[in-house]
Amino acid sequence: MAVQAAQAASGTTVDSPAGGPGTVLGPAAALSCRECGERTPLGPVFACEACFGPLEIAYEFPGGGTSGPAGLRERIEAGPDNIWRYAPLLPVPADVAAKPNINPGFTKLVQADRLARELGVTGSLHIKDDSGNPTHSFKDRVVAIAVEAARAFGFTTLSCSSTGNLAGAVGAAAARAGLRSCVFIPHDLEQGKVVMAAVYGGELVGIEGNYDDVNRFCSELIGDPAGEGWGFVNVNLRPYYAEGSKTLAYEICEQLGWRLPDQLVVPIASGSQLTKIDKGLKELIALGLVEDKPYKIFGAQAEGCSPVSRAFKDGHDVVRPVRPETIAKSLAIGNPADGPYVLDIARRTGGAVEDVDDPRIVEAIKLLARTEGIFAETAGGVTVGVTKKLIEEGRLDPALTTVVLNTGDGLKTLDAVAPTTGMSAVIRPNLDSFREAGLAS
Amino acid sequence: MAVQAAQAASGTTVDSPAGGPGTVLGPAAALSCRECGERTPLGPVFACEACFGPLEIAYEFPGGGTSGPAGLRERIEAGPDNIWRYAPLLPVPADVAAKPNINPGFTKLVQADRLARELGVTGSLHIKDDSGNPTHSFKDRVVAIAVEAARAFGFTTLSCSSTGNLAGAVGAAAARAGLRSCVFIPHDLEQGKVVMAAVYGGELVGIEGNYDDVNRFCSELIGDPAGEGWGFVNVNLRPYYAEGSKTLAYEICEQLGWRLPDQLVVPIASGSQLTKIDKGLKELIALGLVEDKPYKIFGAQAEGCSPVSRAFKDGHDVVRPVRPETIAKSLAIGNPADGPYVLDIARRTGGAVEDVDDPRIVEAIKLLARTEGIFAETAGGVTVGVTKKLIEEGRLDPALTTVVLNTGDGLKTLDAVAPTTGMSAVIRPNLDSFREAGLAS
Repeated sequence: MAVQAAQAASGTTVDSPAGGPGTVLGPAAALSCRECGERTPLGPVFACEACFGPLEIAYEFPGGGTSGPAGLRERIEAGPDNIWRYAPLLPVPADVAAKPNINPGFTKLVQADRLARELGVTGSLHIKDDSGNPTHSFKDRVVAIAVEAARAFGFTTLSCSSTGNLAGAVGAAAARAGLRSCVFIPHDLEQGKVVMAAVYGGELVGIEGNYDDVNRFCSELIGDPAGEGWGFVNVNLRPYYAEGSKTLAYEICEQLGWRLPDQLVVPIASGSQLTKIDKGLKELIALGLVEDKPYKIFGAQAEGCSPVSRAFKDGHDVVRPVRPETIAKSLAIGNPADGPYVLDIARRTGGAVEDVDDPRIVEAIKLLARTEGIFAETAGGVTVGVTKKLIEEGRLDPALTTVVLNTGDGLKTLDAVAPTTGMSAVIRPNLDSFREAGLAS
Repeated sequence: MAVQAAQAASGTTVDSPAGGPGTVLGPAAALSCRECGERTPLGPVFACEACFGPLEIAYEFPGGGTSGPAGLRERIEAGPDNIWRYAPLLPVPADVAAKPNINPGFTKLVQADRLARELGVTGSLHIKDDSGNPTHSFKDRVVAIAVEAARAFGFTTLSCSSTGNLAGAVGAAAARAGLRSCVFIPHDLEQGKVVMAAVYGGELVGIEGNYDDVNRFCSELIGDPAGEGWGFVNVNLRPYYAEGSKTLAYEICEQLGWRLPDQLVVPIASGSQLTKIDKGLKELIALGLVEDKPYKIFGAQAEGCSPVSRAFKDGHDVVRPVRPETIAKSLAIGNPADGPYVLDIARRTGGAVEDVDDPRIVEAIKLLARTEGIFAETAGGVTVGVTKKLIEEGRLDPALTTVVLNTGDGLKTLDAVAPTTGMSAVIRPNLDSFREAGLAS
């Protein structure tokens, strides 16, 4: 129903504006159902017409050889310092880098030797630090892809429901692309978050209700003429949007010198990011851009919202929804859509899903800041905290190459560390007072 | 006095640890007085022993040819995606990129076509967006250089006085480098800023007094055994620290395809950044890395702290101190040390120094966010606001290539825009309520 309504509302698939999907969205060939495999033409749809399963992009990459399509690695390396260097592997037009877009990605992969020493890691430990993105979270990656899909489908308004990072990413990306934006948030959001989302000049609409009410309203709007021409990045553009997370996998491997890491620790909100990182790694192997070898993916949740971790520990294939209660608000999705896929990947690769409680999240944020000078969002505290726990329990091999994701910026979640972070001392402006404080050389 | 004390306190110049400055701090050959030209060996000193004038780095760059030292441009282009690609032109060891440092720089130069249209610019307009640095301000550039100087001089504690951006930059850089840090701030700083500075785990000391009291105390500490082994990035390491701003000039030219811009708009706090950008541009010309042609540098101040703009308009060579009263707190230096040099550069290059009032700063922040998706700190509002004013008054040529600096991140100065930035509407979660709000497609 919703699918057909969206299709009808947009009145177009990608084939119509420019003779064939290949020219419009690069190597994206079709949408394919993750459950039944049914293929659908590219368009602003997100659920399979046959079985209502989630749709994802199916690609036709330029053919092969053992080291990938001729010269692909060199073409990537000669590309721009952002995600568009991977345009040949993404659902975007070949000339994407020439269009106004927020150009996220190619963020730092920090070799974290001081953190490694504290954690007892003898191999090499790296932080993939996505706080370096334009609006300081990984959401810029997924939104940038959604912008190109919105253009391909002729949408003129970019929209989403959000309680934080996504609102800013959509506002900024729409502004730069010259699209109208209209973002829906719960009406009682903190003023700081409202300002961050509203400053880009798009419409910001408060909904009287909680986040679930906001989401329900957005689904209604997609099927209504009132929302005609609107691209909801995480609803009717979701199959495109989600692919943005593949770029994390590409960058990590390229930055390691075109090698797969042995172990990755990835945060879980909906679980989409983790599944797309796995997809990205598999593509690099299939294209011969990296050597085929085993890797383990570990998922990280906050204890206060750990339905996937719970299911993993209980040996279940399904995820039982929970009511979130944690400081890691950017991960607080109680009913994660991609939970079952995450469980499958963690088990298949020999990884795990684990969680940490709020005090340990705060401790991990400070540990990362103190050792590497990186101030992470609470989601980064979750991945670092889980990494520490997995090492302590002997479940993550400290002798291997490990990459831990930090997907956001501590400036956005100051409240999490504020109660336990402050001045060492307050002194009078003279040397005696300074000496008394015990801080002298 | 202070100079000798610092010299004595550190007990070393750069020659001692490793036979010759060239090996320790790259092409830095000596310190040279900007007033009398007297040369001093490299060391943690900042004022001329002969005339008390400010010291700066004198270089001996590897010799020449018309296109710069053989292969320099290629070496730079093959270097890392941060300021260390310019190591051959900075006071840092040749192997600097291999040491743990926060690795700032190579931030985006954004082609701002939508902003250009709004401002009536027919040439090309670019924003150099330093909010992309690790702690989201240009301070990471200068602190990164100071870290290398601190290492060369055997300092084990990194310090500074600060009211904002600098505290975070020092805390993060020291953490990553494995140095102790001790940062001094006024005791009544807002909690958010305290948290941002303290999270990196260094000492953060509140001083009972205002920023002037903090500064005075730091000067006292430099001459005292209590501060032995301490590098104050903006005092006894200032000559090294300040050179970090040259990298803005290098990056802008490289990102323009090794061409000089015609016009630059640069914010003025102490004025140091503007003078170092001029120095960097002149070096690129002298080395033959860019073609020699005229460029104009415009300085930008907030009306509430505009001593240099005032002196420029009055035709004075000296700057009369003022008491700052503006929302642009990162530029609120009432007695800017490099004011006279700024006046000289603005006049010599055919530029100007101009100011804008607080409401226009806020308006400019929003203009930049709305057109380019860049959320700037108040300092970025000052440069964009001054650019607008200069164009309206016909003093900045809209047909030329112009680069405007944004030196910080709007997330750090949310208060500036909060009063005038909010939700478009609050509605009930249904379509009727949405239609009533007049936001439907």
